[in-house]
Amino acid sequence: MGLVVQKYGGSSVADAEGIKRVAKRIVDAKKDGHQVVVVVSAMGDTTDELIDLAEQVSPIPAGREFDMLLTAGERISMALLAMAIKNLGHEAQSFTGSQAGVITDSVHNKARIIDVTPGRIRTALDEGNIAIVAGFQGVSQDKKDITTLGRGGSDTTAVALAAALDAEVCEIYTDVDGVFTADPRVVPKARKIDWISFEDMLELASSGSKVLLHRCVEYARRYNIPIHVRSSFSGLRGTWVSNEPQGDQQMEHAIISGVAHDVSEAKITVVGVPDKPGEAAAIFRAIADADINLDMIVQNVSAATTALTDISFTLPKTDGARAIEELERAKDRIGFESLRYDDQIGKISLVGAGMKTNPGVTASFFEALTDAGVNIELISTSEIRISVVTRADDVTEAVRAVHSRFGLDSDTDEAVVYGGTGR
Amino acid sequence: MGLVVQKYGGSSVADAEGIKRVAKRIVDAKKDGHQVVVVVSAMGDTTDELIDLAEQVSPIPAGREFDMLLTAGERISMALLAMAIKNLGHEAQSFTGSQAGVITDSVHNKARIIDVTPGRIRTALDEGNIAIVAGFQGVSQDKKDITTLGRGGSDTTAVALAAALDAEVCEIYTDVDGVFTADPRVVPKARKIDWISFEDMLELASSGSKVLLHRCVEYARRYNIPIHVRSSFSGLRGTWVSNEPQGDQQMEHAIISGVAHDVSEAKITVVGVPDKPGEAAAIFRAIADADINLDMIVQNVSAATTALTDISFTLPKTDGARAIEELERAKDRIGFESLRYDDQIGKISLVGAGMKTNPGVTASFFEALTDAGVNIELISTSEIRISVVTRADDVTEAVRAVHSRFGLDSDTDEAVVYGGTGR
Repeated sequence: MGLVVQKYGGSSVADAEGIKRVAKRIVDAKKDGHQVVVVVSAMGDTTDELIDLAEQVSPIPAGREFDMLLTAGERISMALLAMAIKNLGHEAQSFTGSQAGVITDSVHNKARIIDVTPGRIRTALDEGNIAIVAGFQGVSQDKKDITTLGRGGSDTTAVALAAALDAEVCEIYTDVDGVFTADPRVVPKARKIDWISFEDMLELASSGSKVLLHRCVEYARRYNIPIHVRSSFSGLRGTWVSNEPQGDQQMEHAIISGVAHDVSEAKITVVGVPDKPGEAAAIFRAIADADINLDMIVQNVSAATTALTDISFTLPKTDGARAIEELERAKDRIGFESLRYDDQIGKISLVGAGMKTNPGVTASFFEALTDAGVNIELISTSEIRISVVTRADDVTEAVRAVHSRFGLDSDTDEAVVYGGTGR
Repeated sequence: MGLVVQKYGGSSVADAEGIKRVAKRIVDAKKDGHQVVVVVSAMGDTTDELIDLAEQVSPIPAGREFDMLLTAGERISMALLAMAIKNLGHEAQSFTGSQAGVITDSVHNKARIIDVTPGRIRTALDEGNIAIVAGFQGVSQDKKDITTLGRGGSDTTAVALAAALDAEVCEIYTDVDGVFTADPRVVPKARKIDWISFEDMLELASSGSKVLLHRCVEYARRYNIPIHVRSSFSGLRGTWVSNEPQGDQQMEHAIISGVAHDVSEAKITVVGVPDKPGEAAAIFRAIADADINLDMIVQNVSAATTALTDISFTLPKTDGARAIEELERAKDRIGFESLRYDDQIGKISLVGAGMKTNPGVTASFFEALTDAGVNIELISTSEIRISVVTRADDVTEAVRAVHSRFGLDSDTDEAVVYGGTGR
């Protein structure tokens, strides 16, 4: 039995009862013979309450002091969790991000992990303790200031510790049973995925799946740490994310992993761009300088009769206004005609490593959308993903149609059959 | 203008408004040209709420994890205070006890400060920042674990930092105007003391005065750091505690500093102790081994006709049951007859360095009690203090009578006159 890293989110430790339930689960893993390292988030609404307090004393809370404030949240949950474990007769010690050796850069509120030096964790484990580590936080390499890792930071803490400690698996406990073939709120027939490759999971994460963040999966892939996403409420086996399926996971391997959707983006179309070298670069430089991440980018084929073209791209709605502002400012320099902004779009993505060698997949995908009467506005593909942009109103129907077409619905087993036909 | 350490208690930073008010006061000190280090406690009821949470997850919260939990409280208040100061246009940085270099022993929940190495605070000050430091907490020298200093710990943090940074003064902000000649809730005519010596303050603190704890005053005396106790609400000049009065403080110097009372103690009488060497030692060894601190100790003069004596002592009521238990266990070994336990007692103490050279003081003290019809059960004296134990019901009247007799009432100026008569 090796070392296991378990991560529990805020909803799993929302109150004293939740903490006691989680403590029991941790002790069970210890009793199974594992060395156990636990990464924990702040309790339930703690972080929101702290942010609220900060806004009451200052309209612009950010930076170093904001990190110092927020990290109080995990300090509370981890100490309580250690107490609850001791109360069950097992030894536990809690560690801040700094004590656990989570070394980051100095970018407050969204620091990146530079190194993990978990000497104290290793000692605590060797002495027979369960180690509880504060998620989401670290200490900056140069100034020794407390930092936070930004959104989804606790998952990243867990994977980084698992890598540094050479763990067997990083278990991410959450309030759903695992990763599904589609969002179960949109597709009631969505099935839990037993195993998915890092690559497919990365595509799902960047296509709108919320269960794991791209950053965390990327870290796990780099260090080859298997992730097991599962529910802290049910105790059922969840979804394994790893390089290769193991044991009976093999049987479940389909060519399509799932369908993701995303309605958090907007589309900007730059109309009437001179069709000559350097124009697109100038547009995207203006956006990049404002620190805005673009998603899909499409340039229309120029009509032969004109020297102008249109460039469309999608980006988070929250960055929309700022992007328009930046482009307007650069309008004369770039020389386009006008901008169109559309925040009523949705994106549907089909993800699966199997599609590389199955040329029929793309055709089936578009047939499904056509049959459902869904109009396509943009298309973008990778080796293992097809994404389209549609009207936001069409997303639910489009996801269901594609999910069903590729045999992912839970009352069929076509997923496997489909892979077998080589269609 | 030199360096000032200011300490604000939980009631001063109970909510966002309180934090903003305190921030303004801090900025005023900075504008006056001082380098400012601020020690802050947890907001209002935060500590109680955390203790409550701990009790929900485990019936026996204590030790390392309990300290980790409680220190979240100051983390929140100090970060918010730094934000509030920044919002007023001044630079501030917050530091945990560990970051501030407060090094302690490893006794969790009541650690002692071993050393203070405030290198980061000094750097922050030199860079023009106001430094905010978490009170009540440190880091253990050997294990690098987070510790707390126990009751009144934030005051001790403030004085220790003031000593390490060679501050001009340590200002303790609280919700009263300073140290009074008696508890104003008992003696409405009690006067605020302008200046009091370390020695007198130590006696008042150990005689029941709650404004400053003995430990904090002892630390200040050892490093000769003047303390200024004052209100965070009024901004008035409070009470200076120091070796020698300065400037106009001199005029206020009376031979009597004040009257303290304490109803938190109980009395144990060990009846029928063989009157031979070693018996008292055996009794007090049994108590000391249980880590119980005694206060007054009185041995009755043996009657010539018997070889037995009685020994009485006072101790905190909270330790009463445990002391009785320890003594009963040692009964056969020590060989006393019986134990009497009395928790309906009160202690009244008169404190003043002037009484050393004023022989009339003791007589006046007892006359005042006699005139008030108060019966005396135990007497104990030091060079600068007389204490008596009475019935708890008599305390209020006794304190008022003594306070009045020594001219401490606020509508007279007899305090000074009295000192002049040499009575």
